[in-house]
Amino acid sequence: MQNSSRSEVDPFIVMDVMEAARRAEAAGRHIIHMEVGQPGTAAPLPARRAVAAQLDQDAMGYTVALGLPELRRAIAGLYARWYGVDLDPARVVVTSGSSAAFLLAFTTYFDAGARVGVAEPGYPSYRQILKALSLAPVGLPTQPETGHRMTAEALAQADIAGAIIASPNNPTGTMLDRDGLGALIAACRDRDRVFISDEIYHGLHYGDRAVSALEISDDVCVINSFSKYFSMTGWRIGWLVVPEAQVRVVERLAQNMFICAPHVAQIAALGALGDAARPELEANRAVYAANRQLVIDGLRAAGLDAFAPPDGAFYVYVDTGALSSDSRTLAADILEKAGVAVTPGLDFDPVRGHGTLRLSYARATEDIAEGMTRLTNYFAAAGPNPLLTGS
Amino acid sequence: MQNSSRSEVDPFIVMDVMEAARRAEAAGRHIIHMEVGQPGTAAPLPARRAVAAQLDQDAMGYTVALGLPELRRAIAGLYARWYGVDLDPARVVVTSGSSAAFLLAFTTYFDAGARVGVAEPGYPSYRQILKALSLAPVGLPTQPETGHRMTAEALAQADIAGAIIASPNNPTGTMLDRDGLGALIAACRDRDRVFISDEIYHGLHYGDRAVSALEISDDVCVINSFSKYFSMTGWRIGWLVVPEAQVRVVERLAQNMFICAPHVAQIAALGALGDAARPELEANRAVYAANRQLVIDGLRAAGLDAFAPPDGAFYVYVDTGALSSDSRTLAADILEKAGVAVTPGLDFDPVRGHGTLRLSYARATEDIAEGMTRLTNYFAAAGPNPLLTGS
Ligand SMILES: Cc1ncc(COP(=O)(O)O)c(C=O)c1O
Ligand SMILES: Cc1ncc(COP(=O)(O)O)c(C=O)c1O
Repeated sequence: MQNSSRSEVDPFIVMDVMEAARRAEAAGRHIIHMEVGQPGTAAPLPARRAVAAQLDQDAMGYTVALGLPELRRAIAGLYARWYGVDLDPARVVVTSGSSAAFLLAFTTYFDAGARVGVAEPGYPSYRQILKALSLAPVGLPTQPETGHRMTAEALAQADIAGAIIASPNNPTGTMLDRDGLGALIAACRDRDRVFISDEIYHGLHYGDRAVSALEISDDVCVINSFSKYFSMTGWRIGWLVVPEAQVRVVERLAQNMFICAPHVAQIAALGALGDAARPELEANRAVYAANRQLVIDGLRAAGLDAFAPPDGAFYVYVDTGALSSDSRTLAADILEKAGVAVTPGLDFDPVRGHGTLRLSYARATEDIAEGMTRLTNYFAAAGPNPLLTGS
Repeated sequence: MQNSSRSEVDPFIVMDVMEAARRAEAAGRHIIHMEVGQPGTAAPLPARRAVAAQLDQDAMGYTVALGLPELRRAIAGLYARWYGVDLDPARVVVTSGSSAAFLLAFTTYFDAGARVGVAEPGYPSYRQILKALSLAPVGLPTQPETGHRMTAEALAQADIAGAIIASPNNPTGTMLDRDGLGALIAACRDRDRVFISDEIYHGLHYGDRAVSALEISDDVCVINSFSKYFSMTGWRIGWLVVPEAQVRVVERLAQNMFICAPHVAQIAALGALGDAARPELEANRAVYAANRQLVIDGLRAAGLDAFAPPDGAFYVYVDTGALSSDSRTLAADILEKAGVAVTPGLDFDPVRGHGTLRLSYARATEDIAEGMTRLTNYFAAAGPNPLLTGS
């Protein structure tokens, strides 16, 4: 049995780092993990309590494809609370994480062969999911001078049927303001293109809150997830908001492709949306805020100041081109000599990512502090070109 | 924003029945549910206990894409226990139900435009998922005289790149024996075609156990799930077994398309696979066996004997062509007059399903007994053509 050509997706380059880190840990070394894109914390206690209470109360069979009505209502309520947007719960589709939402959105809007814009640097899986669906990802490079924010000009000029844009973005953590996001939406609307807004890092901001595409237009597709702010990556629960006219189409696709999102995760998500979870979630965010400052200060102290201070999420994307022209080798060297796992930029930008690294600060503050001390020492010891002069 | 043409999947016809049943219940009527394709029971207690124990022990973040190593080992162990097959756990890929496994398998093996064989009657979502992936479902009609079992001739003659076959099948519950399954696998192998075996109803047999495609060949793709025998539909957890050469490809697709299966469901699945869960699961099966007999006896008593006695699963697919040439109207009439919800055959066979109904006997025995009493009365009162003579 032969593989299809659509199945030839690229491996994650960070996997090599993770495997090397695993081996180092198995050999007794202590590694600081600044490569992982997920909170170290569990789902908030009220979410776990809701699950515990339900376990013996209900058979927890398939739910309807669009998700539990109470959960769809609670998600709509979040739009009122966070953005002052009055969202009809009928437009909310509960999914198995934003990952399943991408599969639904891409199949809803694009036929095989369609060209879909993705930011470079950006979340690597967009590209691979598009490929697996026989769609053509079109990389739209963003520039360091603008904090790698997508511009309306870049979107307008590209030959694409639509685009998916994350704000705050992964790997940069930078955010579009209302005007910036509005210009992107207008650029797509004016050309009859699909605009998909990945809002998975909403809730995790360190200055102004993020703006939702739904504050600007109803004719957009918004994707979000309980993975990041709600600290529920492993539960696989997220959602999609589509224009009213598309709900039936997405419902049929979801019935067939997924049947439903995990029932137990829907129960947990309801718990996470309640008032009782708020203090814990805001405490997590305060930890990230402290970590963020440690990373910014540490990088500057090490003389690595070519990065945009992140507005949200839990990443810093730093230019290391002056140190090495090969982020893969640089990440391997940092792991070996400093015991810190970081992600080579190549995962996010196949063209220019050889000169960048992503540092994640999602873990506990003591880990991040230790990681930054190690990195500062590494860069100080290594001098301007660590790979040539390294200890 | 326009819909794609790949997104135009058919609605489930049974949805109309379910909506009418909901309305009837809201109006105070008591409806017997013989339309639903899922157990009424919860996950086995040891599965729920495992979850309860883990909730405060672990952050339950993303797992590795292929699934928790212990779970992959335990699933491999099931092949030893059920079939005497020595399966390398490295070939097991844990998925969000068999639904996600279909998405993975179809993208792994087929490029856009490829023709893929599906049995008619068969599980309706195969067709719709294939369509959503820009693949072309090719209906392969099976015959009532052979209990709707797929034949090697039909597979060999079709112009297809591969096929997906379920045994026991939904909606018929009929099973292929070792020779029958072996002939299908050989017919595909000889023509370099992909053979995908949907074994989701394994464990639920009422005579001989089902034969796995892995007992016959390693060059097949096997899909299974915790939904049915393990009574865990809503948990969204299943698996895929692929030839060794395909594991890396499927891993990369899974990393990008799904990240991982729900962590909590993986914990539950481990509990469901343990010895402690066996008595409960076998007790569920004994209930289905009793229900099956009630349905068979009831249909025969009502003079409806054009069906193959099911070997497994929890369905009977009965020819109602003598009563009505429109299974949709017949199902609506049965719901209205007898208060029993059943599924029109059109969901499973778009060509010949106007003359068939599927009865599910997955619920409690008292419900099935009451349902069969109502159906027998309905058919007796209605005479040979209930839609003309109805009460
Ligand atoms: C920008 C972005 N979108 C989506 C995802 C996928 O998240 P999930 O499927 O857990 O919702 C991630 C995960 O890291 C991400 O960084
Ligand atoms: C034959 C068959 N395969 C697959 C499925 C999907 O099951 P799941 O995604 O819950 O594993 C079903 C559900 O009814 C089915 O009947």
